[in-house]
Amino acid sequence: MAQKPSIPKGTRDFGPVQLMRRNFIFESIKSVFKNHGYQGIETPAMETLTTLMGKYGEEGDKLIFKILNSGDFAAKIGMDDFVSLLDKENPTLRVSKKMTPQISEKALRYDLTVPFARYIVQHRHETVFPFKRYQIQPVWRADRPQKGRYREFYQCDADVIGSTSLLNEVELIQIIKEVFNSINIRFVIKLNNRKILAGIAETIGQADKIIDITVAIDKLDKIGLEKVNQELINRGLPTDAVSKLQPILHLTGDNLSKLDQLSDVLKDSVTGMKGIAEIRTVLSHCSDLDLEDLVELDLTLARGLNYYTGAIIEVKALDVAMGSICGGGRYDDLTGIFGLPDVSGVGISFGADRIYDILESLDAFPDDALLSTMVLFVNFGDKEITSCLPIASSLRRAGISTEVYPDSAKIKKQMSYANSNSIPFVILAGENELSAGSLTIKNMKEGTQESVPIQQITKYILEQSQ
Amino acid sequence: MAQKPSIPKGTRDFGPVQLMRRNFIFESIKSVFKNHGYQGIETPAMETLTTLMGKYGEEGDKLIFKILNSGDFAAKIGMDDFVSLLDKENPTLRVSKKMTPQISEKALRYDLTVPFARYIVQHRHETVFPFKRYQIQPVWRADRPQKGRYREFYQCDADVIGSTSLLNEVELIQIIKEVFNSINIRFVIKLNNRKILAGIAETIGQADKIIDITVAIDKLDKIGLEKVNQELINRGLPTDAVSKLQPILHLTGDNLSKLDQLSDVLKDSVTGMKGIAEIRTVLSHCSDLDLEDLVELDLTLARGLNYYTGAIIEVKALDVAMGSICGGGRYDDLTGIFGLPDVSGVGISFGADRIYDILESLDAFPDDALLSTMVLFVNFGDKEITSCLPIASSLRRAGISTEVYPDSAKIKKQMSYANSNSIPFVILAGENELSAGSLTIKNMKEGTQESVPIQQITKYILEQSQ
Repeated sequence: MAQKPSIPKGTRDFGPVQLMRRNFIFESIKSVFKNHGYQGIETPAMETLTTLMGKYGEEGDKLIFKILNSGDFAAKIGMDDFVSLLDKENPTLRVSKKMTPQISEKALRYDLTVPFARYIVQHRHETVFPFKRYQIQPVWRADRPQKGRYREFYQCDADVIGSTSLLNEVELIQIIKEVFNSINIRFVIKLNNRKILAGIAETIGQADKIIDITVAIDKLDKIGLEKVNQELINRGLPTDAVSKLQPILHLTGDNLSKLDQLSDVLKDSVTGMKGIAEIRTVLSHCSDLDLEDLVELDLTLARGLNYYTGAIIEVKALDVAMGSICGGGRYDDLTGIFGLPDVSGVGISFGADRIYDILESLDAFPDDALLSTMVLFVNFGDKEITSCLPIASSLRRAGISTEVYPDSAKIKKQMSYANSNSIPFVILAGENELSAGSLTIKNMKEGTQESVPIQQITKYILEQSQ
Repeated sequence: MAQKPSIPKGTRDFGPVQLMRRNFIFESIKSVFKNHGYQGIETPAMETLTTLMGKYGEEGDKLIFKILNSGDFAAKIGMDDFVSLLDKENPTLRVSKKMTPQISEKALRYDLTVPFARYIVQHRHETVFPFKRYQIQPVWRADRPQKGRYREFYQCDADVIGSTSLLNEVELIQIIKEVFNSINIRFVIKLNNRKILAGIAETIGQADKIIDITVAIDKLDKIGLEKVNQELINRGLPTDAVSKLQPILHLTGDNLSKLDQLSDVLKDSVTGMKGIAEIRTVLSHCSDLDLEDLVELDLTLARGLNYYTGAIIEVKALDVAMGSICGGGRYDDLTGIFGLPDVSGVGISFGADRIYDILESLDAFPDDALLSTMVLFVNFGDKEITSCLPIASSLRRAGISTEVYPDSAKIKKQMSYANSNSIPFVILAGENELSAGSLTIKNMKEGTQESVPIQQITKYILEQSQ
């Protein structure tokens, strides 16, 4: 009996139109990365389990897709036997000892950051630092699938590693601007600095409560000041700490004015003042580059507090309510876990799937027709089509994508094929046309048609398609 | 203790230069596919185990990488517990019953053909036939890794499905020619037809020995006629069948003359004569398109006899001894296994890794420098570099990929960065240059330098880089 075909939940097929649209996004991002001198790398889909485990917290470990060592042991004992080994009733169970340590030693990558850290350490002698790399590849997570969350999705990362200069943060902001401008998405860049958050926690005498404080502040807009203060107390902050926090909950004005108020509050925290100085430097360069209107200081931004040590960056679309469409930050010790300490880096990651959803909801993808086949030769039969083949070849040599309908099917079917595939020009070359040396070219969009001498067809199509 | 980083055997990292070169190959292939109207699709890395198992023979099944259902059960019991379950000494073994049926239900795709068949059946109502699709994605095989054989590698496939016209075979031959011409590899296309092989087996009364006969014929060049005949007898062919085969082992002359001799031998086999007619049609169209010198009838070509039903195609490089660099054929019932019978297709697959190795051994990749950063601004300090940022932006707006060295490191280090990354132009903008309004541009290849007014830098670089 035939199988009913399906794909694993949380994964997707991409048909021609979807793929063209996805590639439009990937190519737009890649082209900005390259224009700033970022170099592409690719790492394997599979990493060793030891490379990945323990890097994403306990929850992350569970979401890593592990791969059975099928090449090694399944070749010997077979999948069915393997499964039967798991059944305690089965007497062949004693074979299991041989394979126990080897059941899985590989897994699918969970993000691009850990593989990049592994890459850097493994290839450090052939890498020139600072190293500006981009990487656009799929990652896999055994998350529960839901709308907008997939088990296979692409990340588009750019990182600079081996430089502590804040010019890198500025460049990433430029890149964000250029990417979203090029694909016509209006956006705001939220900027924070982990050192400021640490400074706040330190200043109110609650250095270990940095995450609780940030989570509560984050709710200010939604639940109001009173409830935020209550939540802080519920989270174990003493009332005097909550009092000391009040000026920070009352920050007003533009970025610079907020920074002035913050400087006042955090003046006794070396870490906090360092964070403020870093943001001032970044904002000052942004101002030189007319980027300052795009950047908004946001103390509630708390992504990646487990690994970010300086800047924290997040981008939100203005016209569509959606989570972050790009995020990143600075990490001071990415490669330490693989034996190369003190390598600072800063990077951002674009969320291609969310960007896709936004462009779709705004109906803002470029015209698909531009990307499809330009010309279709109708097939009137073997004799006629034989004469068309060299003409089709000469169109292709001029860069005009051209198809010859392979079967001499009914004309109606062939025209319908052209319509379904949005092919703008259809060439009708029957016996009469061919002997007269002029072919009929039908403009599918306009519904018009013209007779064009064979030698002028390439020129005609090039002119008409401009 | 820090881990010593490594990647799974048989997998590879691709650094910037390798990736640019690989992308050159992929882009060349893709551009020819698109020029012929093939549309891209992508399928998930993971397919359900039932989609893949049983499609590649017993050996293939063993080489499929299976994925543990980590999202489902490891989340509940944890990897360590899971591994311990496999140890018969462990008393928690009784938990195993719960998970036995669910240990693995997904696997990494083994090729692009079976996922494509699955795609076609699953999306048949939204697909326009004939469907010309290309697909360039990695596949995974748990093969023993060795030189030139990897566990993760890309396939670049083009197939036409839903058309029995031999014009499709002709187009694939055109595509092969255009791809290898565009990347400058000299090649020969070997062509065979499964119906001819079947006709030969039928004619000598050994219809079930088609593979034995082909394998033996394949050795003609290497071991000579006498030993081939001996092998045929060893493989169980009666001596009279071997005698009847002799005219086929003695075919001489060009393609058409060989076909004439074959027609004589196979005149009583309907299947054999159909195969000959098919090849004649393909060769006749090739001749109309000046492709006939590239195509060689080769009766020893026997790839894919398990699924090909018509044309069998294989491409070999002329200047480097290497296995096939492209191969394919026609299959009459690809989608039957998934419940959609009688859909004929024909396709080819390019081997990107072998093509890479050939281009490398011929030193025939395009100049890497063309693809890297064009301009580097040396960083003399915060004040100077602040003035450089807007100039760098204006260069990028003109499409000139530009970097600003992020740290005010020693000039020697910055120049060495430019050298290592093959950056052709370095701009030196110290305090004096900036106040004079003219920056020093160093041509790294020529070793010359010039002072250029700031307003003219974009124009200067565009002119110099042509």
